[in-house]
Amino acid sequence: MKIVIAPDSFKESLTALEVASAIESGFKRVFPDAEYVKLPMADGGEGTVQSLVDATQGKMIEAEVTAPLGEKIKSFFGLSGDGKTAIIEMAAASGLHLVPLEKRNPLITTSYGTGELIKHALDLGVERFILGIGGSATNDGGVGMLQALGMQCLDSQGKPIGFGGEALIHLAQIDTKALDPRLQNVHIEVACDVNNPLCGERGASAIFGPQKGATPEMVQQLDRALAHFASVAKRDCGKDIAQQAGAGAAGGMGGGLLLLPKVELKAGVQIVLETLNLAHYVQEANYVITGEGRMDAQSIMGKTPIGVARTAKQFNKPVIAIVGCLREDYEVVFAHGIDAVFPIIRQLDSLPEILKQGEQNLISTAQNVARVLALKSV
Amino acid sequence: MKIVIAPDSFKESLTALEVASAIESGFKRVFPDAEYVKLPMADGGEGTVQSLVDATQGKMIEAEVTAPLGEKIKSFFGLSGDGKTAIIEMAAASGLHLVPLEKRNPLITTSYGTGELIKHALDLGVERFILGIGGSATNDGGVGMLQALGMQCLDSQGKPIGFGGEALIHLAQIDTKALDPRLQNVHIEVACDVNNPLCGERGASAIFGPQKGATPEMVQQLDRALAHFASVAKRDCGKDIAQQAGAGAAGGMGGGLLLLPKVELKAGVQIVLETLNLAHYVQEANYVITGEGRMDAQSIMGKTPIGVARTAKQFNKPVIAIVGCLREDYEVVFAHGIDAVFPIIRQLDSLPEILKQGEQNLISTAQNVARVLALKSV
Repeated sequence: MKIVIAPDSFKESLTALEVASAIESGFKRVFPDAEYVKLPMADGGEGTVQSLVDATQGKMIEAEVTAPLGEKIKSFFGLSGDGKTAIIEMAAASGLHLVPLEKRNPLITTSYGTGELIKHALDLGVERFILGIGGSATNDGGVGMLQALGMQCLDSQGKPIGFGGEALIHLAQIDTKALDPRLQNVHIEVACDVNNPLCGERGASAIFGPQKGATPEMVQQLDRALAHFASVAKRDCGKDIAQQAGAGAAGGMGGGLLLLPKVELKAGVQIVLETLNLAHYVQEANYVITGEGRMDAQSIMGKTPIGVARTAKQFNKPVIAIVGCLREDYEVVFAHGIDAVFPIIRQLDSLPEILKQGEQNLISTAQNVARVLALKSV
Repeated sequence: MKIVIAPDSFKESLTALEVASAIESGFKRVFPDAEYVKLPMADGGEGTVQSLVDATQGKMIEAEVTAPLGEKIKSFFGLSGDGKTAIIEMAAASGLHLVPLEKRNPLITTSYGTGELIKHALDLGVERFILGIGGSATNDGGVGMLQALGMQCLDSQGKPIGFGGEALIHLAQIDTKALDPRLQNVHIEVACDVNNPLCGERGASAIFGPQKGATPEMVQQLDRALAHFASVAKRDCGKDIAQQAGAGAAGGMGGGLLLLPKVELKAGVQIVLETLNLAHYVQEANYVITGEGRMDAQSIMGKTPIGVARTAKQFNKPVIAIVGCLREDYEVVFAHGIDAVFPIIRQLDSLPEILKQGEQNLISTAQNVARVLALKSV
């Protein structure tokens, strides 16, 4: 018997690899001789670097970069075991969590640090990037990131426009000549789970600006600035990013990235599934076990277990999810390839205590699921 | 496919019938055409009357009786659907919960009310009693109960000794002539899950006295009184209850009951299993589903799910438990016939909220268990 264990992390409690190992422990008590394949998964959001580093026996690389408000911070990215792929979470350099609540202001926050992470990875000779862009503090159209990579964004006097969403309105010219030439030879896959356009009612500023600290007036200002950026980019780079689906992701980072040579916006979980070659392992599996910290109706919107389940169902494989908690509205997952789902909470306790019990409760739940699978109906 | 659903109640949340119905609902979403047998179970403790009344389509009977401290209260007992069996919980008439904390005093509390319940049931013409004796407030050797049924317990002046554990020391003579003659023709099965003797270090007073309000001095006094009662009973009734296993249950109620004509002390869950004829239904089942409010290592000490599991294992049937909560030490149940166990909590919440969600969480868990059973390994 072969069992593929492909969970996401349980946020605040266990990495995806720790989740997979706990599930394996529980199953091994029942099926000690089964073959287990552990694939720590992710959906392109928080934990993606850790999961892909764990899955490929890669390593974490530390790097000093520019935080959203301009100060220097220690950040990190992942390098796959074969050294060919860099895995970057934009939030590690340009994340909202790096800006104190009272200082959140997308007029001035920059994505420059994310560009620096890319540059660091290029220095290591990678051929491919996986870039998760969730949780950003910025609304600068990814211009900071482009600046870090050598793109000249100049005002009408030929001077750099500076940082932040506010500065974009002064953009008069984009000069790509100094863009890091190594970008011509690398493929960048951007984990992007929203299809918002750059501007307008469903654009970056209107939809995501407020959670980054934008007032209604700032939203208007930022939206105009992004539209202006798009028009200059169309003229100078020959790419129309104004209406492209996903260009509005991460404060327009989706759009800015599209100005780089070989960039593709894809569903985050899809990138991870392909990178880890889940389909290959699933083909031979008797059971596929997945999981995430919290399962609810939102889980069908690009979360890991559903991505895993869809792949498994291409081969008609049974899929069981084991989860940290399960919201009342979860049952829609049954229509998306999850055959059954079990929450791991055994008894009421405080949240810190429950998080501490996570591994033990996972092992217990996995063991009981395996015990049911081992039953022969009579 | 035939599925037997035989759970205990979830205390403070759902009756055993409600639990069984919720499990059935969850299973029916997956196996709509299966045949379901719902047997609301119990272990002789709290909820036994409700479960057996529900299981036999019987009814609850109200009766006014004497509470442990002598006042009149409304109490109840169950009558089976065929009218032949009375189901009585001693706690309904002589329970510790009927005595306010500051008034708990086993020197004076009486089991008289339980005798009155028996008398009420005899008036209805029952042929058989099931008597659960858990949760009593008394340490009177069941003498109050015997008094209510006509037994004369007299002091050296030939006067009734009165109520309570304290009074027993004055017992000089037991006169059985006035004992209700109908007791000669009824069978009384006493649900008794402890094997403590009447007196001594492991006796009623030493082990159960303190939780009923006895100080160390009172324990000594009560123990002497019970020993005296046993010696008088041996002489006047010809029965030696001093060392009999179980005589110490419920403040010596076990011993007092043994002075009645046709009494048998048995494991509570065994009485219920036989009454509901679980073995008959299990023989034909594909799966047996049981459950209880809380499962832990103590569950193997005569609790319902283990009783159900042992019966099921006589016929090699798979047994799955669905429980309100699951303590860390539960795994010993696997060695006692439970194949797998699933707690129903889906997410952290306050206890009142969790209790309120009980039915819905049960349905959800049952559905997911059924979904796993429906899987075909590939």
